[in-house]
Amino acid sequence: METVTLSIDELTELVKAILVAHNTSEANAAEVASALVAAEIDGQRGHGLSRIASYSAQARSGKVNGQTEPSVDKTALSLLRVDANHGFAFPAFSRAIDELMTTVKETGVAMAAITHSHHCGVMGHHVERLANAGLIGLVFSNSPKAIAPWGGKDAVFGTNPIAFAVPRANQPPLVIDLSLSKVARGKIKVAAEEGKPIPEGWALGPDGQATTDAKAAVSGTMLPMGDAKGATLVLMVEILSAALTASHFGFEASSFFDAEGPSPDIGQLIIAISPGPLSGGQFAERLETLFSAILEQPGTRLPGSGKAAMRKKAEQDGIEISRTVHEGLLKLR
Amino acid sequence: METVTLSIDELTELVKAILVAHNTSEANAAEVASALVAAEIDGQRGHGLSRIASYSAQARSGKVNGQTEPSVDKTALSLLRVDANHGFAFPAFSRAIDELMTTVKETGVAMAAITHSHHCGVMGHHVERLANAGLIGLVFSNSPKAIAPWGGKDAVFGTNPIAFAVPRANQPPLVIDLSLSKVARGKIKVAAEEGKPIPEGWALGPDGQATTDAKAAVSGTMLPMGDAKGATLVLMVEILSAALTASHFGFEASSFFDAEGPSPDIGQLIIAISPGPLSGGQFAERLETLFSAILEQPGTRLPGSGKAAMRKKAEQDGIEISRTVHEGLLKLR
Repeated sequence: METVTLSIDELTELVKAILVAHNTSEANAAEVASALVAAEIDGQRGHGLSRIASYSAQARSGKVNGQTEPSVDKTALSLLRVDANHGFAFPAFSRAIDELMTTVKETGVAMAAITHSHHCGVMGHHVERLANAGLIGLVFSNSPKAIAPWGGKDAVFGTNPIAFAVPRANQPPLVIDLSLSKVARGKIKVAAEEGKPIPEGWALGPDGQATTDAKAAVSGTMLPMGDAKGATLVLMVEILSAALTASHFGFEASSFFDAEGPSPDIGQLIIAISPGPLSGGQFAERLETLFSAILEQPGTRLPGSGKAAMRKKAEQDGIEISRTVHEGLLKLR
Repeated sequence: METVTLSIDELTELVKAILVAHNTSEANAAEVASALVAAEIDGQRGHGLSRIASYSAQARSGKVNGQTEPSVDKTALSLLRVDANHGFAFPAFSRAIDELMTTVKETGVAMAAITHSHHCGVMGHHVERLANAGLIGLVFSNSPKAIAPWGGKDAVFGTNPIAFAVPRANQPPLVIDLSLSKVARGKIKVAAEEGKPIPEGWALGPDGQATTDAKAAVSGTMLPMGDAKGATLVLMVEILSAALTASHFGFEASSFFDAEGPSPDIGQLIIAISPGPLSGGQFAERLETLFSAILEQPGTRLPGSGKAAMRKKAEQDGIEISRTVHEGLLKLR
């Protein structure tokens, strides 16, 4: 594969220019570009450059409002309601996180409900910002329908990711980031395109029965990780991210990918916690005791432990992308 | 099986009398008795009468301090640190929940870290109390070691339950309650006693390899629900319930069952959220929209939906227990 290497700044500027050319304000384009490039650096390509074409088309069609600004309403001493105003999610997250950092200093824990929102990319990045400021972060999002209620056959819930980050003494934060489907939908799509079967346990066909036929799975539903137990977590995240933020549920939300129809209007919930007062100042030390007990066992690692090296490499050597992708980006600009 | 039927009050009084006879204060015995009987009523026998013998033995040996009272320290505007003081967990939960209900009125969200704690029974019951007061409740607990870090072979984490409850308009709360092991350890113990194999995927042997030998599994570790993904949730719950409360981790905690050694000193974290301000007053209505979308599909149900009938039956007809169990209880009194 022929490749092109761009510095982080070059790639970010290019992505920003594309968005600005597609009816997006400079400020919003800068937020979105940073987020997509950060995803690409961390190897999360499904949340990276692969999104630009659909983001641009959505900003152009008005499915996403590229010009709006999020608004923040402090509805209780420790609670914020953040309206993404049918715009991109990233500016709403930035505002929410800035405000949470102020609020949590006064109260010790604070929550932000983001509504009228959109795809929020790598969830771990949002909570990592909180952890970089010494806070524990927890975030829940719903997404367009993919998972059926346990025992049913029609998708109601999204894949409903959870991310969690904790600050560490003299180390980058620990970040946990997972969606609640057994596998990413992308894996099933790839198998369907290649005409290959999928393992049992990944998905149900449109009849609600287990299937190994990838094509049936694409028109069916995703199974939750942890099966019946996991299904209760999917429900919990749907409630926290969508009912509690008064947003669209998965079954009501439009696609994150095409440029048709109204905005998805899904929701996100962020919790920021100051660890000192809850732990009597012992959090950092206790955390390292736990991590040592894990890492002294051969074969173990901490979640996200490969990221530091990927980020260092991208800073030093730039980001390598295929020439085809690069040419596609240049045409979009 | 010969059985005896006792009213809820009769059974509660009996359990209370046993605890009082085993070095437990009247007030603590009343809290513990209510909790164990409530578990029995809900069909959660592993958290019900089956615990009385070991609770009593622990109160007698001093592993649990049956005479102490929990103490509460408000360490930030929205944060409480509750010290169970090596006593039973139930009095600490009661105090924590009472205080959370007051605090959350002022701030919208509040958290309580419970430390120097013990087995907290049916987790759903604690958050159900919050939901009965119109609040969303979320609780995390760790427990003595059962699950190895992913890729390792020695148990570090507990089975780390999560419970979540939301208030509903004109209906009992929805309660979600799950531990993060694939199955309850009790199932593996039963298979080992009966000399039967267990399904692959439940547990690892002491060598860290998958096993279907129940005896090997008993001396090995439990697998998390959702495998590698679930393992990250197990870690998250261990951090929230034990690192953030500055309590013992699973690998440091003594058994919940025997009367030997120091108290387990595990931790719990409770979050109480006022749904109104986050949802712009739309929470109750959004929730019912979601539940309708689930229940209109044949084969689905809401978690915990069988409980109302069990509770009504116990109130009307009393609780049926085996004569052997009843005689055992009478001897303990």
